[in-house]
Amino acid sequence: MAHFLDTSDPGFDAQFDALLGLKREDAPDVDAAVAAIIADVRARGDAAVIELTAKFDRLELTPETLAFTAAEIDAQIAQVSAADMQALELAAERIRAYHARQMPEDAHWTDAAGARLGWRFTPVSAAGLYVPGGLASYPSSVLMNAIPASVAGVERLVIVCPTPDGAVNPLVLAAARIAGVDTVYRIGGAQAIAALAYGTATIAPVDKITGPGNAYVAAAKRRVFGRVGIDMIAGPSEILVISDGSADPDWLALDLLSQAEHDQSAQSILITPDAAHARAVTAAVEARLETLERAEIAGASWRDNGAVIVTRDLSEAARLSNRVAPEHLELCVAEPSALAEEITHAGAIFLGAFTPEAIGDYVGGPNHVLPTARSARFSSGLSVMDFLKRTTLAEMTPRALAAIGPAAERLAISESLQAHGLSVRARLDAINLESDA
Amino acid sequence: MAHFLDTSDPGFDAQFDALLGLKREDAPDVDAAVAAIIADVRARGDAAVIELTAKFDRLELTPETLAFTAAEIDAQIAQVSAADMQALELAAERIRAYHARQMPEDAHWTDAAGARLGWRFTPVSAAGLYVPGGLASYPSSVLMNAIPASVAGVERLVIVCPTPDGAVNPLVLAAARIAGVDTVYRIGGAQAIAALAYGTATIAPVDKITGPGNAYVAAAKRRVFGRVGIDMIAGPSEILVISDGSADPDWLALDLLSQAEHDQSAQSILITPDAAHARAVTAAVEARLETLERAEIAGASWRDNGAVIVTRDLSEAARLSNRVAPEHLELCVAEPSALAEEITHAGAIFLGAFTPEAIGDYVGGPNHVLPTARSARFSSGLSVMDFLKRTTLAEMTPRALAAIGPAAERLAISESLQAHGLSVRARLDAINLESDA
Repeated sequence: MAHFLDTSDPGFDAQFDALLGLKREDAPDVDAAVAAIIADVRARGDAAVIELTAKFDRLELTPETLAFTAAEIDAQIAQVSAADMQALELAAERIRAYHARQMPEDAHWTDAAGARLGWRFTPVSAAGLYVPGGLASYPSSVLMNAIPASVAGVERLVIVCPTPDGAVNPLVLAAARIAGVDTVYRIGGAQAIAALAYGTATIAPVDKITGPGNAYVAAAKRRVFGRVGIDMIAGPSEILVISDGSADPDWLALDLLSQAEHDQSAQSILITPDAAHARAVTAAVEARLETLERAEIAGASWRDNGAVIVTRDLSEAARLSNRVAPEHLELCVAEPSALAEEITHAGAIFLGAFTPEAIGDYVGGPNHVLPTARSARFSSGLSVMDFLKRTTLAEMTPRALAAIGPAAERLAISESLQAHGLSVRARLDAINLESDA
Repeated sequence: MAHFLDTSDPGFDAQFDALLGLKREDAPDVDAAVAAIIADVRARGDAAVIELTAKFDRLELTPETLAFTAAEIDAQIAQVSAADMQALELAAERIRAYHARQMPEDAHWTDAAGARLGWRFTPVSAAGLYVPGGLASYPSSVLMNAIPASVAGVERLVIVCPTPDGAVNPLVLAAARIAGVDTVYRIGGAQAIAALAYGTATIAPVDKITGPGNAYVAAAKRRVFGRVGIDMIAGPSEILVISDGSADPDWLALDLLSQAEHDQSAQSILITPDAAHARAVTAAVEARLETLERAEIAGASWRDNGAVIVTRDLSEAARLSNRVAPEHLELCVAEPSALAEEITHAGAIFLGAFTPEAIGDYVGGPNHVLPTARSARFSSGLSVMDFLKRTTLAEMTPRALAAIGPAAERLAISESLQAHGLSVRARLDAINLESDA
């Protein structure tokens, strides 16, 4: 049974603070091991990557077999059913259409002083996507990472994916092909992150690394950050459902369980002003847990981290949700767009009872890589912007420099940066001479 | 004398790689000390901050005197000359006008399947800006950090600025006032970052921390990242000037020295196809070093990290510049816009001989917080986007869910995420019943 809170209880504030402060993730400290692996890959390149892959994935590779060949990828994809292929293609098409709208505009203008100003976006040259092996090897994540990069115009896009004992998920290779990724290296862990960041004789370095991974991968991404760009370090998944009591309790129970089944550390929260509905959803969760394949994981997540909160009204529910800043927020209410206006922090909002969160995981169009652990207070889900960078542009005419240069000179002097001031003054003097002549 | 390279030399590639690999920054390892400071502030709040400020800044504070009062700020601002105030106001106005154009648009649309999709931007609720004390206490940095936050709509904006022995730069407080920041705490170092991230009885926690600082501040920002958002960790400043030889060598010498005077670790590079011009600029640098106030710093930077590279033509210069991915790039050429098209990686571009980089530091309009250490390959300068986050929106109708839901269900099954699939299936069954009825 999940935590049960009621905002009219005198102890509510303390209980809610405790809920916000729940330490769900027990991340092992692997930083020293990861530092050693990165140093080894930097020093010995391919040889280190190959040795570490033999050790951790029980797979013997050579520089020539680090990447899947096109024929190997073809053979794997041939095992994918037509229905699965079509589902992946529909998902890819919808994700591409959504992300294409995110492409930002360049800008150029001339202001009153005569200065030409603007900015320009250019893609990252090369990106590497980490795809976990084993159970968490999700083809949908391949699409969600690779398609924004492709839309942004990234020239070289590679995947690293460990294949323990040589086993690979054919759907991952199918998703890579659909997303336009040609090169897939069968390596993982910190050694794969190090190879992407620093390069080896076989693996060219990239400029940006994205994608989820275990504690080793997360620690390695933190360590190479600065050398290359990284996406967020994702924590366990979360859903918060605000319900007015109008939707089928079983639907909401399944939505809550669809996060809980990911991971025992996942968190599912229901907030509703309808206490009877709260009890009905709780009962539906318990009933579904009787038959769910991942009942053990989902049950533990619901018991340890799940919560049901009864509020005075929907606005109070929205205010509590803003304090949680959930990764996924479902608004199962009669007027979801109106309630959405009261939401200030959330990774993704799913409006109305016919929008289960799982739609967003696969085919909705928006990205499913979203800020966790309350980081929606300050960060956003993955987008084409993660694979672009902005260069600002400024061009002064003599007239523009004459207008604003003296202020720059004065501020430079006030900051004791003499050469800054002189670099402006030398031009101003030339402009004055010119206009005197 | 700086490094002198010529692309027609047989040894050029190795020399250029060595230049790219120059380890300019010798960051001390202060991580353990910083971890202890953060733990102390988390445990003891104000008391720890006050003790650490007494120890490091030789300043005795109480919870009541942690922040400047309005009267104290007024008294400091009264010392600022009218001319400095006007220069700050002109800079603020231009920075605000530039950044106002960066505000992104929300989007809402309905696609062919009937799904309503979109996204919405909301500001970070609270931001904290770090302003260094002492020599590096730059009022221009206050404007460059605070104004984008203000334009983004951040509700609560505070500054932390150490005041060693109680000394404060009046221009910093003037810039804070002009930028709309009311609260300035006279604390700094890792203890200030910890207070902003975790809060104390007196200092409310923020969601995002930006601004430059020393090794302790940088290490503290890295450590609190995740708890709050941070901007980039800035390294030493850099300028790269591409010249066709048409501009006054003295102007370019001053531009190169305006980075070199920041810091011995700064880097200034001139690239030109005109060997005689290269020599003339070098001679001008030496001549200016004779009289420059910061000649010692600037001279050491130019000697250790400066470089002059002679190329076959301007396109080769652009290609080399792209490998450097400089923070600041000046295009002192006859057709700067045309050459800018060949630039793929740069933080900011300054076009034409009348646009010294120093204009961008103060009054140009674009931000002067820019990616250093080759990180312009994957990141951008500070902007309003750093104080906003995107929430994605999706709303299915029964018709839309009927169209795309089956693909989501199939992919969920292929990923062994049963509850995900069932959450879609339960709704599809209801829709089918409805349409059968």
